[in-house]
Amino acid sequence: MTSPPASPSKAVCLLSGGLDSSTCLALARREGYECYALSFDYGQRHRVELEAAARVAAALGAASHLVARIDLTVFGGSALTAGIPVPKGRQAQEIGQGIPVTYVPARNTIFLSFALAWAEVLETSHIFIGVNALDYSGYPDCRPEYIQAFERMADMATQAGVEGRTHIQIHTPLLHLSKAEIVRLGRDLGLDFSLTHSCYDPAPEGRPCGLCDACLLRRKGFEEAGIEDR
Amino acid sequence: MTSPPASPSKAVCLLSGGLDSSTCLALARREGYECYALSFDYGQRHRVELEAAARVAAALGAASHLVARIDLTVFGGSALTAGIPVPKGRQAQEIGQGIPVTYVPARNTIFLSFALAWAEVLETSHIFIGVNALDYSGYPDCRPEYIQAFERMADMATQAGVEGRTHIQIHTPLLHLSKAEIVRLGRDLGLDFSLTHSCYDPAPEGRPCGLCDACLLRRKGFEEAGIEDR
Repeated sequence: MTSPPASPSKAVCLLSGGLDSSTCLALARREGYECYALSFDYGQRHRVELEAAARVAAALGAASHLVARIDLTVFGGSALTAGIPVPKGRQAQEIGQGIPVTYVPARNTIFLSFALAWAEVLETSHIFIGVNALDYSGYPDCRPEYIQAFERMADMATQAGVEGRTHIQIHTPLLHLSKAEIVRLGRDLGLDFSLTHSCYDPAPEGRPCGLCDACLLRRKGFEEAGIEDR
Repeated sequence: MTSPPASPSKAVCLLSGGLDSSTCLALARREGYECYALSFDYGQRHRVELEAAARVAAALGAASHLVARIDLTVFGGSALTAGIPVPKGRQAQEIGQGIPVTYVPARNTIFLSFALAWAEVLETSHIFIGVNALDYSGYPDCRPEYIQAFERMADMATQAGVEGRTHIQIHTPLLHLSKAEIVRLGRDLGLDFSLTHSCYDPAPEGRPCGLCDACLLRRKGFEEAGIEDR
């Protein structure tokens, strides 16, 4: 947990509309930050998550919510954007074993870079991201070593950093929590889980498939927390 | 200068269509790399540079040229994308003194992040960028310390880096060259300067204004090199 800012500080909060990033935003709000929520339309199959992000940002009282359009489909390479099928079912036992095909190349690096740009414009050094090292499904850019390296790079990249006026802080309050702990934290923060969306491959009307990596991790988290996911 | 690869290696080459990035691409080609040129449509006033980039990529025999559409206008904050006028004329004496309003927040970080994504898909560790620390006009993300920090972060961010199979190399062959030295290098590499575009605020038909930072730096470089800029 981070210490609360003395006066309301601005923070850029990456928000996919899923369980983790929504809990992360709820925590930043609880800690007194004025939150600038940032989502991405990156050609993802599960674009319905952007509607979830808008609902969550409004419900949690974000000061602003931007959706940046970026083109990650040009490079191909991931089941989340390209013509590769999203793996189902048997994936459960494979979680945590190697990097899955749902990995989008350099995604968090790109997302954090945009967050850094907005933070620079807002003149704040606070960025929140709901990455998680335990249930991280093998994504390399969800590890603490990566986050620290990004902070060091960010300090070199920005006007404020060069002038020594600031030190970019990437807040990762969920980094060492299990999915069940995240669910409990979200509940304690009063997060309305029904607003969030996790599925990588939802039906056209937005209904989760129940079989992909994200659905399985979510279900496991709620089950272990002993909380019902409506 | 970098040592030439044993067999043709792939390299992602950031290409704005300007003098520096075009010279950088020419050098990567001369060194034997199979070049994947990457440009960005980021809402810049001087979008005509994308046509220059396409001409240069074709002339230099790039294996591929992609233009990624990204939305940097959402954050505002720079004369290159927002409604802030591009400074003219008296700017000449201010070059190198502080960070100019033409600075786009976190631009090189965002550009390099996309290059990293493509490099990961192409399974190469080579990225070329034509940044320059001498005539860099005060942009923080054109300094060697920044480039090194990005390399370290990139090694943490990628599947290949995590597995220890690769070390991301950001090649910056122009880093310590003056503009005049870049012009001479471009000439020696056979670069057709008339294909390139540098102006931040061109007339609608693409003609450079002759007064902005980029125009002044370019003119100074050609004058000092004793070479005519057609």
